[in-house]
Amino acid sequence: MNVDKNRLEFLKRDAVQGFTKEIGLTPLSMKPGEFSTSIKIKKHLRQQDGFVHAGVIAAMADHTAGYACYSLVPESHRILSVEFKISYFRPASGEYLECRAWVSKPGKQILFTEAEVYSVKGKTKTLIAKAMHTMASVPKEKIAK
Amino acid sequence: MNVDKNRLEFLKRDAVQGFTKEIGLTPLSMKPGEFSTSIKIKKHLRQQDGFVHAGVIAAMADHTAGYACYSLVPESHRILSVEFKISYFRPASGEYLECRAWVSKPGKQILFTEAEVYSVKGKTKTLIAKAMHTMASVPKEKIAK
Amino acid sequence: MNVDKNRLEFLKRDAVQGFTKEIGLTPLSMKPGEFSTSIKIKKHLRQQDGFVHAGVIAAMADHTAGYACYSLVPESHRILSVEFKISYFRPASGEYLECRAWVSKPGKQILFTEAEVYSVKGKTKTLIAKAMHTMASVPKEKIAK
Amino acid sequence: MNVDKNRLEFLKRDAVQGFTKEIGLTPLSMKPGEFSTSIKIKKHLRQQDGFVHAGVIAAMADHTAGYACYSLVPESHRILSVEFKISYFRPASGEYLECRAWVSKPGKQILFTEAEVYSVKGKTKTLIAKAMHTMASVPKEKIAK
Repeated sequence: MNVDKNRLEFLKRDAVQGFTKEIGLTPLSMKPGEFSTSIKIKKHLRQQDGFVHAGVIAAMADHTAGYACYSLVPESHRILSVEFKISYFRPASGEYLECRAWVSKPGKQILFTEAEVYSVKGKTKTLIAKAMHTMASVPKEKIAK
Repeated sequence: MNVDKNRLEFLKRDAVQGFTKEIGLTPLSMKPGEFSTSIKIKKHLRQQDGFVHAGVIAAMADHTAGYACYSLVPESHRILSVEFKISYFRPASGEYLECRAWVSKPGKQILFTEAEVYSVKGKTKTLIAKAMHTMASVPKEKIAK
Repeated sequence: MNVDKNRLEFLKRDAVQGFTKEIGLTPLSMKPGEFSTSIKIKKHLRQQDGFVHAGVIAAMADHTAGYACYSLVPESHRILSVEFKISYFRPASGEYLECRAWVSKPGKQILFTEAEVYSVKGKTKTLIAKAMHTMASVPKEKIAK
Repeated sequence: MNVDKNRLEFLKRDAVQGFTKEIGLTPLSMKPGEFSTSIKIKKHLRQQDGFVHAGVIAAMADHTAGYACYSLVPESHRILSVEFKISYFRPASGEYLECRAWVSKPGKQILFTEAEVYSVKGKTKTLIAKAMHTMASVPKEKIAK
């Protein structure tokens, strides 16, 4: 697919606002159908045992997968999460989280994605979670509140 | 099951720390195997279209379900999310989110839960998401970092 | 919703063909947005340890949920499974399986359902699995092979 | 991991019995943590529109993933499905289904797997579904009925 470079640059910036700004989501790289992000693990992202909260990991996977979809749909369309499933392989700690998401099955209305989340400590990168999403591509005017 | 009232009160306080404090999670009520929470919808919880971020909803469902499990396990044990699936019925806006979670199948090592998330606007309460979790009950000493 | 009685009777018959005939699916009752079925547990439905195969339970939940959706869409439309998640609470044995499925969130293109599967032995009915589905309602002409 | 060749050969044979014999599951190859199977698409595996029933695809993914796990656990242990999620990318037709499953995160009690299902028509192989499972490894004596 032919995707404008400016569009990808815009999406990388657009991905950080509201809640994702709050949790410190940082875009790493974007290609058509793929997006990578990182989050510095800070105290306000932890749960009761000191691990990164499962909800942070889910939010990261969801958002990274969502913007991987944005890179494949027309500017007139918005991406909404229909559903997802996430499996947690290990409790997450370390310095950073990294997430890589990709569209496994594109489509005009429904896109399927996968996302892997890693914890990074020094030079060690550990797969800590994996998610599969169903995303909907919806014309902008249909989701006005 | 016989659950100490003090234990339930402790758990309700314990549920708010780190990330859940950040997103404004507020305990409403807890019974053995059940937990209800609310979150006031503020700007820093939204995504690019002004709706509550799917990740906030997932985090709320995960945490509320997790503490519903805590109410059924010994104090020596911790709850970790093994996996979950969440379906988003509608984009969420309004004044509050409310979440009700319950243990659908208790167990010594594995507990299954369900969680429903509602958006509240004035007197209107709308079901916006539903999740099913698999939770693990793990002896405290096994999850030390 | 106003659903023709004849349509419901047709759907109950239509639900048993091909693979569902093979596994002995039997319709119990259908109302708009709800469907109940049973399966007699026979040897050819078991797995290596003598329990009902997880795949039979998944097929039953999927099909019962799918036809619960059929009861809510126009005759011009077909139902396809987009995805589902199923949790297995206990290994299943006994005389019968029973499944109850209902549409938890209807929609023109996407319908969400829940399904519960019970094993029945004498007068004892035990919840053995629970599923959540995303179903697509698609115009007949779009799915011609 | 050191896995006995005889054990793998035994597991390949053991994988076909009861329900999986009924649906024509055929082992293709097994390595520690990986299993591949095929199913010839026959009439009794279809649903109302002539496609392979979603339940057959789910059963195939579940079983192939389960036996991928068997290749990594001691002979004293049995594998039970805790839960899974499957996404359907396209309706399935053609001559054969092929499934490849692998253990994405091994563990003593809990194993996570992925499974991909393809439809095969002549030389064309199309990814039609993808699943993620949580499997439990349980000592034989604990699951006696």
